[in-house]
Amino acid sequence: MIIVIQCKDQVGLVAYIAAILAKQHLNIVSMREHVDQNESLFFMRVEVDDNPESAQLEQLLKRLLPDGAMVLVNPLPHKKVVVLVTKEYHCLADILIRNYFKTLGATVQCVIGNHATLQNICKRFDMPFHHISHEEGTKEEFEQRVIETVEQYTPDYVVLAKYMRILSPNFVSRFPMRIINIHHSFLPAFIGANPYRKAFERGVKLIGATAHFVSNELDEGPIIAQQIIPVNHTFTAATMVKAGQEIETSVLARALKLVFEDRVFVSKNKTVIFE
Amino acid sequence: MIIVIQCKDQVGLVAYIAAILAKQHLNIVSMREHVDQNESLFFMRVEVDDNPESAQLEQLLKRLLPDGAMVLVNPLPHKKVVVLVTKEYHCLADILIRNYFKTLGATVQCVIGNHATLQNICKRFDMPFHHISHEEGTKEEFEQRVIETVEQYTPDYVVLAKYMRILSPNFVSRFPMRIINIHHSFLPAFIGANPYRKAFERGVKLIGATAHFVSNELDEGPIIAQQIIPVNHTFTAATMVKAGQEIETSVLARALKLVFEDRVFVSKNKTVIFE
Amino acid sequence: MIIVIQCKDQVGLVAYIAAILAKQHLNIVSMREHVDQNESLFFMRVEVDDNPESAQLEQLLKRLLPDGAMVLVNPLPHKKVVVLVTKEYHCLADILIRNYFKTLGATVQCVIGNHATLQNICKRFDMPFHHISHEEGTKEEFEQRVIETVEQYTPDYVVLAKYMRILSPNFVSRFPMRIINIHHSFLPAFIGANPYRKAFERGVKLIGATAHFVSNELDEGPIIAQQIIPVNHTFTAATMVKAGQEIETSVLARALKLVFEDRVFVSKNKTVIFE
Amino acid sequence: MIIVIQCKDQVGLVAYIAAILAKQHLNIVSMREHVDQNESLFFMRVEVDDNPESAQLEQLLKRLLPDGAMVLVNPLPHKKVVVLVTKEYHCLADILIRNYFKTLGATVQCVIGNHATLQNICKRFDMPFHHISHEEGTKEEFEQRVIETVEQYTPDYVVLAKYMRILSPNFVSRFPMRIINIHHSFLPAFIGANPYRKAFERGVKLIGATAHFVSNELDEGPIIAQQIIPVNHTFTAATMVKAGQEIETSVLARALKLVFEDRVFVSKNKTVIFE
Repeated sequence: MIIVIQCKDQVGLVAYIAAILAKQHLNIVSMREHVDQNESLFFMRVEVDDNPESAQLEQLLKRLLPDGAMVLVNPLPHKKVVVLVTKEYHCLADILIRNYFKTLGATVQCVIGNHATLQNICKRFDMPFHHISHEEGTKEEFEQRVIETVEQYTPDYVVLAKYMRILSPNFVSRFPMRIINIHHSFLPAFIGANPYRKAFERGVKLIGATAHFVSNELDEGPIIAQQIIPVNHTFTAATMVKAGQEIETSVLARALKLVFEDRVFVSKNKTVIFE
Repeated sequence: MIIVIQCKDQVGLVAYIAAILAKQHLNIVSMREHVDQNESLFFMRVEVDDNPESAQLEQLLKRLLPDGAMVLVNPLPHKKVVVLVTKEYHCLADILIRNYFKTLGATVQCVIGNHATLQNICKRFDMPFHHISHEEGTKEEFEQRVIETVEQYTPDYVVLAKYMRILSPNFVSRFPMRIINIHHSFLPAFIGANPYRKAFERGVKLIGATAHFVSNELDEGPIIAQQIIPVNHTFTAATMVKAGQEIETSVLARALKLVFEDRVFVSKNKTVIFE
Repeated sequence: MIIVIQCKDQVGLVAYIAAILAKQHLNIVSMREHVDQNESLFFMRVEVDDNPESAQLEQLLKRLLPDGAMVLVNPLPHKKVVVLVTKEYHCLADILIRNYFKTLGATVQCVIGNHATLQNICKRFDMPFHHISHEEGTKEEFEQRVIETVEQYTPDYVVLAKYMRILSPNFVSRFPMRIINIHHSFLPAFIGANPYRKAFERGVKLIGATAHFVSNELDEGPIIAQQIIPVNHTFTAATMVKAGQEIETSVLARALKLVFEDRVFVSKNKTVIFE
Repeated sequence: MIIVIQCKDQVGLVAYIAAILAKQHLNIVSMREHVDQNESLFFMRVEVDDNPESAQLEQLLKRLLPDGAMVLVNPLPHKKVVVLVTKEYHCLADILIRNYFKTLGATVQCVIGNHATLQNICKRFDMPFHHISHEEGTKEEFEQRVIETVEQYTPDYVVLAKYMRILSPNFVSRFPMRIINIHHSFLPAFIGANPYRKAFERGVKLIGATAHFVSNELDEGPIIAQQIIPVNHTFTAATMVKAGQEIETSVLARALKLVFEDRVFVSKNKTVIFE
């Protein structure tokens, strides 16, 4: 069973927590701890070898921890997610496959596309697909329809699997640090549109992909995972796009795995990740 | 022996060149060729298994190639280089070691430092060291003294091995595409000063280093080599600096090897590299 | 259009070939050439910017090249493949997805499984699935049924996508250098069964995967692609299996891409790959 | 300050240890813990933000931990090492440079070579060099002279920096898990002599290097660090050697850093490393 804790730092926290777990005869299989000394914040993820009564243990822990502590004993073992897409299939297909074989660590409830391109692949997996075109009505109306559709599923996370629309602050504020995006560059290089075109023009020797939580600043949210692959002068912007899709898929998969296993904490604009 | 060619592209170039080599009974061990179709430029690097008379072969080739072709038969087998440094030792020490064991592919003629910090390590290798302080006289006078010192060695390349001063357009124009810099970030992310501090503040999960030719735009010259290493929340800006030094050293070493082996061509603001 | 050539090496080959292409007014977009000096073998892959009449150009080239030259002008632009599987889904699912979106560079004709586990995912893609159990009849009879099923499709390549049976020399000889296997280790480390268990017991810090052509020696055929990921003391043999599946998928995908684009030549027990 | 603990596992260990540290008003900056559930062993590395009296804290901890616990409070902050070499300079030079600039995390006391090749580079750093030829006397006499020379320095670790002689069990038993070797392959592939030749003949697409503790089985000791680089058909065994030297240097440097910072625990034939 997993226990995650985030609170103000103070001397003796590990001792308090470990003592409580020992009293419950819980053996610690793995304990990861980090103190952000600048922010005076304490983060911990513990795996114990038994399944105690969660609510009671949460209370015990909270009583001893500083006010405002976030304590989750056995956090949602299986998250619910809604996936937003546009036209590119590679990230979505990877998610659908993992979902189908129950190795995603979460359950995909539906897919929403602003184009209908990916409807068929969803159908093949009996996955509900909502086509909400951004070409009908105003930008605000379009987004409102997306928000309403997402919210009717009450998902734990929203995954932007190559969703090529920018979310409004209104959208973002409804799912704080619960929207995960894959950006097709090595952030903070090439923020915004057409990163492969920019990478081609700059003549870089590596291209990258970044999975991050979405905040109100475009491509500025806390980074979860990044990866790169080498490129050279034989690449065009178009072949960079293709090569990049491979790492977009694997970086997003990796980020989702980390998030769904409760290994990712957000601390201001950064992440603390216990891999 | 090596032959490098750069010229306007046209049909039949490979046939012309290969025919001339065949007539000279030169067997092609390795031939690398690239056409930049946007710019209509042709690049070639050939290794043949014999040592023909260079000047004559150059003439033969130039006669058949488009006007303005750059042809080097057996280009400088051993380049001369001047190294500029400030205080950090890691890149310089690596260069001094390779120079001492004759595996650099070039000869270091002298080291110039705007601080005296690295004088002693140079002395240990009997390497001339010129301390030219940037604190005496104006910025222009300082740079003029550096330029004069460099020029008295007539080097083929100037290597900025963690030289923390920005070169003026005057300096750059004297060594066009012959100044190689190591920048301590994954360009174009974190251009300019304090990239590790910026990387720390952004919370990236990879940090990088970039070796590039110096042009008049800060950190915007043609990129030769890039490399990254993973970092995580346990890193401070200070430990990122230390971790980064390892890849700065290896990326610069790799870029120098490629340049000194005549594997790097410059095409506008990019490089074509036949590894 | 692509031209691939493999023959005995001799002086002037590049000149002959380039001259013929120039006479046909074919502009060379990219030319890759390698001479194996030990074996005196010549390999070439050329991309030209037009689509000449293939058969005629092949004849022209063969007339001038050494006896026994292999020349393919515009080789099969779209290969046919049969995929063999056992129970693990990850490699197969990746292939099915790419096949469905027409980015595999080949057409999957059918899937054959010695277990029925993967029948359902094939059905979702309307992909013919043949369940041929190895538990009925002798080992030879089982394999004979597999061979007959494969051969009725006359595939260009047979892909072993985590097919956990060893092929007999009889099977291998029917598809020489046309069977591609993914082995779940960094060959030649951990040949044979249970490589992750062995890797766990040895305490390695990296685990790997290898895609290779199948020869009669177990896991000894020419290697096409290899990749590794870091592991540490927190991994069990079971979590190594899971982590390894990610690179098995991507290494096999990469090897297939290289083979299907005619970038891979076999030279004795090695490959020459023009990436 | 650093505290490292290794002992039999039992419930409550983290609580005991953390309680003791809290009573001493020591704030835990970083705590890494691992339980080897197969062997029922507990490993811990703690960084605290103060410098308590070491001997007393060690006693306090030992009293509460299982019998036979290994507890080091503030372990040797600066290790002493003797380096053994043969002819290749790259690993030694890297160590000498880091030693000279005091970034090795240890002090090199002397270098012993069975050839005199590297005497001069040592001289340049005023580093004592002992040339002990393996050609004088028997193999046993030679090794006895090496052992005596090493032992007169009472080093904490012996580093084999491309020392091309196999150590006898007698030698190994004098420095149990205190001899660190760099092997020029990705172990367990290519154990023993000439790994690059074997890698070339096998046609691998990646070559590697492995730093490990030396045990009595050749190249079978606990692995500390491994790294790989890509190679292809253009590499000969000789160019693989050169390319491999770059990673040999960096893998050994990384392993030494981990060991010297007390991040490496040995558990049977494996390592537990808190990076």
